[in-house]
Amino acid sequence: MIRLGILGYGNLGRGIECAVKHNADMELKAVFTRRDPAAVQIRTEGARVYSANDLAAHKDEIDVLILCGGSATDLPEQTPAAVKLFNVVDSFDTHARIPEHFENVDKAAKESGHIGIISCGWDPGMFSLARLYGNVILPEGKDYTFWGKGVSQGHSDAIRRIKGVVDARQYTIPVPAALEAVRSGSCPDLTTRQKHTRECFVVAEEGADLARIENEIKTMPNYFSDYDTTVHFISMEELKRDHAGLPHGGFVIRSGVSGWNNENKHTIEYSLKLDSNPEFTTQVLVAFARAAYRLNKEGVCGCKTVLDIPPIMLSAMDPAEIRAHLV
Amino acid sequence: MIRLGILGYGNLGRGIECAVKHNADMELKAVFTRRDPAAVQIRTEGARVYSANDLAAHKDEIDVLILCGGSATDLPEQTPAAVKLFNVVDSFDTHARIPEHFENVDKAAKESGHIGIISCGWDPGMFSLARLYGNVILPEGKDYTFWGKGVSQGHSDAIRRIKGVVDARQYTIPVPAALEAVRSGSCPDLTTRQKHTRECFVVAEEGADLARIENEIKTMPNYFSDYDTTVHFISMEELKRDHAGLPHGGFVIRSGVSGWNNENKHTIEYSLKLDSNPEFTTQVLVAFARAAYRLNKEGVCGCKTVLDIPPIMLSAMDPAEIRAHLV
Repeated sequence: MIRLGILGYGNLGRGIECAVKHNADMELKAVFTRRDPAAVQIRTEGARVYSANDLAAHKDEIDVLILCGGSATDLPEQTPAAVKLFNVVDSFDTHARIPEHFENVDKAAKESGHIGIISCGWDPGMFSLARLYGNVILPEGKDYTFWGKGVSQGHSDAIRRIKGVVDARQYTIPVPAALEAVRSGSCPDLTTRQKHTRECFVVAEEGADLARIENEIKTMPNYFSDYDTTVHFISMEELKRDHAGLPHGGFVIRSGVSGWNNENKHTIEYSLKLDSNPEFTTQVLVAFARAAYRLNKEGVCGCKTVLDIPPIMLSAMDPAEIRAHLV
Repeated sequence: MIRLGILGYGNLGRGIECAVKHNADMELKAVFTRRDPAAVQIRTEGARVYSANDLAAHKDEIDVLILCGGSATDLPEQTPAAVKLFNVVDSFDTHARIPEHFENVDKAAKESGHIGIISCGWDPGMFSLARLYGNVILPEGKDYTFWGKGVSQGHSDAIRRIKGVVDARQYTIPVPAALEAVRSGSCPDLTTRQKHTRECFVVAEEGADLARIENEIKTMPNYFSDYDTTVHFISMEELKRDHAGLPHGGFVIRSGVSGWNNENKHTIEYSLKLDSNPEFTTQVLVAFARAAYRLNKEGVCGCKTVLDIPPIMLSAMDPAEIRAHLV
């Protein structure tokens, strides 16, 4: 049995508990939290809840620690610190800061002899794999990544910070015509506005100036001003009834050519349709936790991304069985 | 530069020549043929044509030999023999015999200290990767593989063996309703007939009994009798004009669940749309040839499949650049 620990018990932490149920070779030993451990109720029988301050005391009870904090402020500190004590996996998803995060984790991991696999989720994660495989098979070509239809938590949070907004849910939606143009193999150049639209469901305070709120959303730099955005004002009851889930998904498309004169076109498409963004992410995290455990047993240490991991190491199945049934 | 050789100069061998043009870190040094070398015209300036009997004499001039023979009779003999002299990659695609081929290549490769990566193409190959990643992320789920729309060379050959047939082209076509049912996440049980239809374009001898030919096609065991098959008789001119290419493609879909009570559904889909089946296959082969070269330099030997190869080893890009731009 691979003994797992969780640091952080939010959406991802709860997802890991579910994912462990689907993987017979794994068990959840402990959840570490920054809250008062006595106040945290978990669902896994036999697992313990400890303070995040007590990680070091439990380092021999856990084979892989799964870091379930946020990418903005938690993981840049937690992953390099935790890899001094444990093999770790995280879902760090700030694309621009991956090289810096990699260096920090790599240094700490090599010093301690552990392995840290970073950015395991779907983007980065499975989409990174799709982009890499697409690039190596069609070196002459172009990449496209579309997200959605799905809830963007960052954009929903941005709306909630507007004065007069009680709650909000924002959906990112790929533009069907753009998807079709890419799938045709014509390698179009697409602007931000041409690729995605944004749809917002907003609960406003009673008596709030709806026109002002709508305008503040649509003109918000980085988040909305470069997109065609639709705003719907709804009641809290409607928000809870119709927008409680965290669905997401997306498409990675590589379009490229082959032939002596580049005369043949090819399109590779990888897509996801997810009922629960955090639960899918945690299913990816536990698979890479298995690989982290195995690779470290073989003496591998340092920071890795999903691109460094031999796919077969992710599977609990016997290699001969895999060759007979999945290859 | 990675020095490549080709054994066998048919559709795949010619595809390798094209693929090498798209990969600046590779050069084609030699083509080995069972025909008279003087009679084989190749397109790569500077590359030589040798007899397949002279492989051993050129073993130090080539880093990876790409085997471009057929899976029925060529590769089961050629791959284990060639791996005694070279690092090799092949596109062995008889699924049922992969375990046996693996064992034969593994034994020879370990004795000689070379690496042999087998079954590199799209199915097996990229579809194997899609199946494995799908299975590890959604352990509770179901796999579906659809092929087409595309030309099946085995089925086209089977039609050509019927008395009175001059030439033929067979297209395998996924049934749209089956694809939709799978994408919905309902995990349907589908029969062979429900998944694919077969469409045949046949050039018959003048005066041939068309009704008999059509009946022989539609009732042919294994190839056609389990499918809804359509037969069109056309002229040789039409065949050459409208059916000269070898397009293909397909879909691997993994549908599964997550959550404490399996309450959330997820669908992962990997699909290919290819103008040229052999050229796409060769683009995959050369990427795995790069990995074979690098892994053997690190001291790795034995037989491998695409599932054993760390994805990053396939790319000519610098790892730091990959982390900055593709992860």
